Amino acid sequence: MKRFFTPGPTHLYPTVPNHIQTALSQHIPSISHRSEGFKNMYGETVQALREVFTLPSNWEVLFFASATEIWERLLQNCISTHSFHFVNGSFSDRFFMAGKKLKLGVMNAEADWGQGFSEVGIPGGVEMINFTRNETSTGVMTPESFIYDYRTKHPDPLITVDMVSSAPYTDWDWSQIDAAYFSVQKCFGLPAGLGVLLCGPRILERAQEKANTGVSIGTYHSFPAMAQKTRQNQTIETPNGLAIYLLGKVCQDMLARGVKEMRQTIRERAQILYEFLEAHPRWSPFVEDTSFRSQTVIVADLPEGSKEVLEQLAGKDLIIGNGYGKMKGKQLRIANFPAFTDQDFEVLLTELRKIS
Amino acid sequence: MKRFFTPGPTHLYPTVPNHIQTALSQHIPSISHRSEGFKNMYGETVQALREVFTLPSNWEVLFFASATEIWERLLQNCISTHSFHFVNGSFSDRFFMAGKKLKLGVMNAEADWGQGFSEVGIPGGVEMINFTRNETSTGVMTPESFIYDYRTKHPDPLITVDMVSSAPYTDWDWSQIDAAYFSVQKCFGLPAGLGVLLCGPRILERAQEKANTGVSIGTYHSFPAMAQKTRQNQTIETPNGLAIYLLGKVCQDMLARGVKEMRQTIRERAQILYEFLEAHPRWSPFVEDTSFRSQTVIVADLPEGSKEVLEQLAGKDLIIGNGYGKMKGKQLRIANFPAFTDQDFEVLLTELRKIS
Repeated sequence: MKRFFTPGPTHLYPTVPNHIQTALSQHIPSISHRSEGFKNMYGETVQALREVFTLPSNWEVLFFASATEIWERLLQNCISTHSFHFVNGSFSDRFFMAGKKLKLGVMNAEADWGQGFSEVGIPGGVEMINFTRNETSTGVMTPESFIYDYRTKHPDPLITVDMVSSAPYTDWDWSQIDAAYFSVQKCFGLPAGLGVLLCGPRILERAQEKANTGVSIGTYHSFPAMAQKTRQNQTIETPNGLAIYLLGKVCQDMLARGVKEMRQTIRERAQILYEFLEAHPRWSPFVEDTSFRSQTVIVADLPEGSKEVLEQLAGKDLIIGNGYGKMKGKQLRIANFPAFTDQDFEVLLTELRKIS
Repeated sequence: MKRFFTPGPTHLYPTVPNHIQTALSQHIPSISHRSEGFKNMYGETVQALREVFTLPSNWEVLFFASATEIWERLLQNCISTHSFHFVNGSFSDRFFMAGKKLKLGVMNAEADWGQGFSEVGIPGGVEMINFTRNETSTGVMTPESFIYDYRTKHPDPLITVDMVSSAPYTDWDWSQIDAAYFSVQKCFGLPAGLGVLLCGPRILERAQEKANTGVSIGTYHSFPAMAQKTRQNQTIETPNGLAIYLLGKVCQDMLARGVKEMRQTIRERAQILYEFLEAHPRWSPFVEDTSFRSQTVIVADLPEGSKEVLEQLAGKDLIIGNGYGKMKGKQLRIANFPAFTDQDFEVLLTELRKIS
């Protein structure tokens, strides 16, 4: 049995194959997206997401094709002039670059790969400050407290959080941010093809204000139109209904298991992995400062290179992430996602220890 | 066994459940979208699409989330000033409205629902002329010859064809158009969540020219960047890999069955359905002019209303499309897609005749 400890696409949540069978027998891919059956299914998924995230009732759940799309839509809907980006890896940089490609006034604060941020000033006129909770490329986590501080000091700009490879690990204080988003092929252990935006009221207001000035906020994925549809358990276009169904089922499984307990398991396993790396004769955690270490994507520096280790582990049917971009061949990136059973984790640890 | 004769989402192509099983056992949803395994899979799908459509080698296959997204991307990538739309139903109108929402100079020629177009002049300065091969809302087909005439008379504007609910029924002369697109939940009998753009060289050139002027052509789904990736069997973002896999498998199934033979079956069944409607004591084909009748979405006028008929058929596990928008409750829309076996079609005919 192959196990994919890759930081997304990744191992499927163990219940997914059965949920796909049920979806097929219930004709989920065939029913009309305007039918009552679809609306009920959609409503169940949104409700389960609300419970997993303890989302305030005035927040909306909006579905996109990917987190990459959500970057574009946040800028398109909410930015007239200036957006500010905390960039410390490939994915936070891509959001920043999306702003450049839209010819917007985008600014950034940069940290080296593997490093957290120190406090930086935000220039006046910035409409949105964008954080990445978990840089999937480097395994650096930006602490909640760091993000919340910006709300206190800069109450006017919108605050967004890319929680792509960390959700639903973090228990957010929703009053401190305006939007958070993820894609389903990470911690939810689902096939790729769906991005989810949890969207606070200030985001919707800002998008409406921008539209009211007479400029375009896009054609079909404008937030005010999407919000109106989602309140009716509907989407603008024919959506990836199978993915919406599967996400709802996995959320229900997580709720049955206990979200708090699931978060605790992630914390415990992360600790075991970091202790293993700290004690390793040659390997070490890439992120040195413990307060910036991701709990869901654990990145290890391998001075002897990662190619042979990855091959050895693959020989044991363990697929582990390689270093990202410029770190390819130098690192391991190990997904610590909820999809893994205790037995999966034991197998991983045993094989990692054997290589040592 | 329920049969979904709805014009999308629709009945799954009969091999799809087995292909999903194979995808799961081959870990298609878990493999990295940067891996050789993914590239091979992607390449096989593109090759199968090329064969189904006998696509010229200088055309590219680009993947999106939906045909709705493709409307936006065509305008965003290719239009600086003016786009012209042939509008004769809800979907062609939405493409036109997308141009308005992008604040572009869009123009249209309108035909009443159920009617084809007569020739109209195209104003100078139009950069793109957009046709809908098959209006899913009305069952009106725009003939190839009508579209090709515009190429002859207006060689400069790009010509695009929405073939959402008709592909791969039509055997296009690719030298006469510049782009054609569809979504997979229609004739390919797949779960929704993937749109496919078949993209000729003039489209890519136009997008590059627009980008060269310094204006935005979008962030991640700009055609020149997508074309570069697709030539490497890659995508910009983490894609809906399961859908790409399933599309390839269904295309291979269609090739094994014979695309010509499949088109012939559609033609024969359409003829049987239209003859049934012509001979019906009360019902009639909505599209009166035979040269404008869709072969894949057959729309019937029911003077006594469609509600009870739809319920009666549903009681026999036959789910048929209702009239669209303003025609809801007044019409049937019957999908004549390749997913249906001879037996499925026989059951449909038998039950339709019983109601008569």
